[in-house]
Amino acid sequence: MEIKAGPLLSQVNSPADLKLLSREQLNPLCDELRQYIIDVVSVHGGHFAASLGVVELTVALHYVFHTPQDNLVWDVGHQAYGHKILTGRRSAFSTIRKYHGLSGFPKRSESPYDSFGVGHSSTSISAALGMALAAAHKGDLRTNHIAVIGDGAMTAGIAFEALNHAGVSNANLLIILNDNGMSIDPNVGALKEYLTDIATSYTYNKLRDDLWNLLGKLPHSRFSREMVSKLEASMKGMVTRSSNLFEALKLRYFGTLDGHNVQKLVDTLQDLRNIPGPKLLHIVTTKGKGYALAEKDQTKWHAPGLFDKVTGEIQKKAISGPQPIKYQDVFGHTLLELAEKNEKIMGITPAMPSGSSMKIMMDQMPNRAIDVGICEQHAVTLSAGLATQGITVFCNIYSTFIQRGFDQVVHDVAIQDLPVIFCLDRAGLVGEDGPTHHGAYDIAMMRCLPNMVVSAPMNEEELRNLMYTAQLPSNRHPFVIRYPRGEGVLADWRRPFQKIRIGTGRKIAGGRELAILSFGHPGNFVTEARRQLLTDGIEPAHYDLRFVKPLDEKLLLEVFSQFDRIITVEDGSIAGGFGSAILEFMAAHQVQAQVRILGIPDRVIEHGKPSELQKECGFDSESIAEAARALMRDQITVRS
Amino acid sequence: MEIKAGPLLSQVNSPADLKLLSREQLNPLCDELRQYIIDVVSVHGGHFAASLGVVELTVALHYVFHTPQDNLVWDVGHQAYGHKILTGRRSAFSTIRKYHGLSGFPKRSESPYDSFGVGHSSTSISAALGMALAAAHKGDLRTNHIAVIGDGAMTAGIAFEALNHAGVSNANLLIILNDNGMSIDPNVGALKEYLTDIATSYTYNKLRDDLWNLLGKLPHSRFSREMVSKLEASMKGMVTRSSNLFEALKLRYFGTLDGHNVQKLVDTLQDLRNIPGPKLLHIVTTKGKGYALAEKDQTKWHAPGLFDKVTGEIQKKAISGPQPIKYQDVFGHTLLELAEKNEKIMGITPAMPSGSSMKIMMDQMPNRAIDVGICEQHAVTLSAGLATQGITVFCNIYSTFIQRGFDQVVHDVAIQDLPVIFCLDRAGLVGEDGPTHHGAYDIAMMRCLPNMVVSAPMNEEELRNLMYTAQLPSNRHPFVIRYPRGEGVLADWRRPFQKIRIGTGRKIAGGRELAILSFGHPGNFVTEARRQLLTDGIEPAHYDLRFVKPLDEKLLLEVFSQFDRIITVEDGSIAGGFGSAILEFMAAHQVQAQVRILGIPDRVIEHGKPSELQKECGFDSESIAEAARALMRDQITVRS
Repeated sequence: MEIKAGPLLSQVNSPADLKLLSREQLNPLCDELRQYIIDVVSVHGGHFAASLGVVELTVALHYVFHTPQDNLVWDVGHQAYGHKILTGRRSAFSTIRKYHGLSGFPKRSESPYDSFGVGHSSTSISAALGMALAAAHKGDLRTNHIAVIGDGAMTAGIAFEALNHAGVSNANLLIILNDNGMSIDPNVGALKEYLTDIATSYTYNKLRDDLWNLLGKLPHSRFSREMVSKLEASMKGMVTRSSNLFEALKLRYFGTLDGHNVQKLVDTLQDLRNIPGPKLLHIVTTKGKGYALAEKDQTKWHAPGLFDKVTGEIQKKAISGPQPIKYQDVFGHTLLELAEKNEKIMGITPAMPSGSSMKIMMDQMPNRAIDVGICEQHAVTLSAGLATQGITVFCNIYSTFIQRGFDQVVHDVAIQDLPVIFCLDRAGLVGEDGPTHHGAYDIAMMRCLPNMVVSAPMNEEELRNLMYTAQLPSNRHPFVIRYPRGEGVLADWRRPFQKIRIGTGRKIAGGRELAILSFGHPGNFVTEARRQLLTDGIEPAHYDLRFVKPLDEKLLLEVFSQFDRIITVEDGSIAGGFGSAILEFMAAHQVQAQVRILGIPDRVIEHGKPSELQKECGFDSESIAEAARALMRDQITVRS
Repeated sequence: MEIKAGPLLSQVNSPADLKLLSREQLNPLCDELRQYIIDVVSVHGGHFAASLGVVELTVALHYVFHTPQDNLVWDVGHQAYGHKILTGRRSAFSTIRKYHGLSGFPKRSESPYDSFGVGHSSTSISAALGMALAAAHKGDLRTNHIAVIGDGAMTAGIAFEALNHAGVSNANLLIILNDNGMSIDPNVGALKEYLTDIATSYTYNKLRDDLWNLLGKLPHSRFSREMVSKLEASMKGMVTRSSNLFEALKLRYFGTLDGHNVQKLVDTLQDLRNIPGPKLLHIVTTKGKGYALAEKDQTKWHAPGLFDKVTGEIQKKAISGPQPIKYQDVFGHTLLELAEKNEKIMGITPAMPSGSSMKIMMDQMPNRAIDVGICEQHAVTLSAGLATQGITVFCNIYSTFIQRGFDQVVHDVAIQDLPVIFCLDRAGLVGEDGPTHHGAYDIAMMRCLPNMVVSAPMNEEELRNLMYTAQLPSNRHPFVIRYPRGEGVLADWRRPFQKIRIGTGRKIAGGRELAILSFGHPGNFVTEARRQLLTDGIEPAHYDLRFVKPLDEKLLLEVFSQFDRIITVEDGSIAGGFGSAILEFMAAHQVQAQVRILGIPDRVIEHGKPSELQKECGFDSESIAEAARALMRDQITVRS
């Protein structure tokens, strides 16, 4: 079903077309663009509310600036759907987030209008500043460099680092602070409150008004004029230098401005285009603007899936009988269950209460589960600080985002051997969010660190038992539990807790000639592959190692005493990962075997359904079975 | 030679002893403590100027607060020598930074007074906030939690993240901003200028004075009183809410205060102890205070080595004839040399211009080499932004600090395949700085990322050629060059540039039965080991792989066709490192051999001389030779 764009939008196949429109046509164009996003996302899915919030900004930016010569960097990129539609990608737009389709985020290889690839938050100021400094180095002072960043993204440290540098540079940089009070969940922290303050009360204006009111009542005399002028200069000096957080960081501050008034945005951007140096425009927008339900429940409508655009009903999968729930929900319910029994437990999430389901505990125990905002570094070191005082911290961070707290994991947790429990959600291939979000590197990152325990559950019961084990007083080390996005495999997941001996794996099935060692959820693919292989007369043994660190030495020695054909399966980077750990074990224990390592290969894996990507990477059940058949065909060539 | 403490300091073996002193005795105690630090560091070495700058603060903190019940966190920890001396470690103080001696940084396992281990900057607010939240969770509102952080450390993102959280918490947290304008090098950025502003000009006071001056000249009339009062309230509201950057973040701000006035510090800390909630005290100090030469050249005296405390002459090693210079200086001179020929080259350093020797280029080309402050995250993404515009960026970051920019390396550089050149200085065991600073994990971190080239030079000439190769237009990928702290091996290092084919290693020496594969500088240990082994009749071949990624497949296939006993040598974590990459190669190419992996084992390696630590880890030349002998003795047990 082709989705038709409105009459004005239909004419716009590039920003050049947009510039042909009159000022009067911009308002109806915004309406059409908004409607088009609603029409497409409701039937094809994707991020929703963020793009609705910046329709007017998107139109105004491409109307005023000369993209792609001018560099426009969208922070995070959830909000760039309008940008994609206006920059020649309308016809492909229904493929967004689908395998081989458009990326859900700006991406350099997709379009020259995507000047910088994004996905993680808070990089835009650094990137745009780099572009601006490069232009300055080339003597180009005309090109504009624009970073559009949300107030949520502004809380991450890198954004502050970039502001600190921008303020003392002479870079031709425009930062647009898109203030909507939201990340995926509502924003938190002092900055948010500060922004609300300056957006709602104009102390400077108020002070100035008060002063003029006062002075207006005074007799006009020679000294009052002179003194008032001096006073005003002094006041202005104070206000421009230090009354505003951004001015304190030496950025010229403009705002606040209604971000849904496209006419005013165009006027303002035209003015700002002519002001050199680093500057910040603070606009206020509503996430989900123009779709009432999304305005009302912005978290739910961040990426709602498919929905009926008229009724607002979100499609649910047809379900027959009890089904496995998501690993995320198992985490959330289990955390609350454990916290009810163990009062030492606290939870920390950096801005993902809904996504991680830590919200379940937050709702019940608001003082014991804390959303600290988008700040993985702080989340990790805060957890370390809590742990020094005997608190049992569950710090839930998506695998891809723990990259941002890596130094803190090394320096504050691992080296100090503090028993923080890291629940790394969305480990492995995350699917539609693509390469910026795949949790591919956590195994390699974590297993090289001293003192770390690194585990992965094969199913929901294992997740529960690992969480249970990690919070027992008997665990005295930092403890990683990594698990994927989405559903597990058990319908009855809420089983009684059982302690797992740290560093022990388990034998899932016996076999002959060939053993398959798996780590985490892909063990289920092995189970399926084994079923297929049995029909071919191949009977592999299957071991779920459960811990990549410490490895189960006893179990592995048993495996290597029986098998010299081995396949390892993981949903992480092959380089440095689980299979690599097995090879290191073999070298250290002087055992030899033919080993095939299946996992995420050494290239950028694009977006698509997880099943499509697992197949592409070669560790879905078909690929595992095929690898087993190939290994059984191979001659063993051992040099001696 | 025992160093004698002064009469007061001799009595102080714990903060309890300190509390027995009268207020009048604090000034002479500070003098004695300062002198003791000078006496010890001049003959035993260590960090110097930072501790001199906080003598009064250290005394005041332990005089007022009840450490260790009250938690005191020193950011970075360079400045904690006085703290160590006052907390029961005076007698051991001459062992500081020596093998098996006191750590140069606060360290939890060393003393209960070291509430949090540090080394990297900017973690203290997060850690102390975690401790404060833990206390609140336990219902303890009496314990104090104090973070002492420099203005340089305040520029790193994690500090801002923590401030943003602290401001909205009710935590009993005191942040002491030790403002001395310095990191190791002078601080940079907008925050520094802002702090200078508020420390030197009191806009609020000035405005108030102006106002009163104005109004004082007005006739006293009924309306002016009323209106003035209203105006003042409005002004005060504005000032307290938003005129100060820290107040904007909802922290109560106190300052500025002379950080060398111990009496005033004690008074102020006593007052602050009774004010609940998050608050910030801004003190101004002089790094190197009390040692004139150090006050004058704070960078040189950050950690000067041994010196004559009377003349201030810094000891130099006795040198006979031309000697190898440091890798750092080879980097610095070579960068300038390349930049003179290639105008696309720019340099980025996060606060390490002296340490990395990028200063050599900065002095000559101030617009092309930039110190961005302590902010590795921004440094990496800024470099990515520069690279999108065709700039050839040499981004020099210590191996241990690249951990803090890891997400940016993955997300902004590797996934986008931008040809940023990362020169990872101080890779491997750094020596006296110890576990927080060892560059142990970069090989594992970097080689799992797609598109990355990961290299290490065996000597200065190789470093030059790798730098030359990386900046050629023929290189289109992100390119890591890792090299250790300290001297190389060549006296005549400034040789003409030669292009290296990316992904090629080299054969250093032929041999029989056994091959040793090395990566980077430890190749020199192999050369020495081989010399020893030849006298035993063992003749190992030696290959310098030069690239851990991409691996030289042709060379390796040649190696494995000739040898089935292999030793790999690297100065990085064995888990996931170079040897592990060789094992992965073997599995992928179905070749088998006995492999011994020498490198940094899976435990925390403490401080000491690099040679002591290399021996402990088992990859110095003796250990390599011994491993070779053992491998030659072993029966080869190949299963078939």
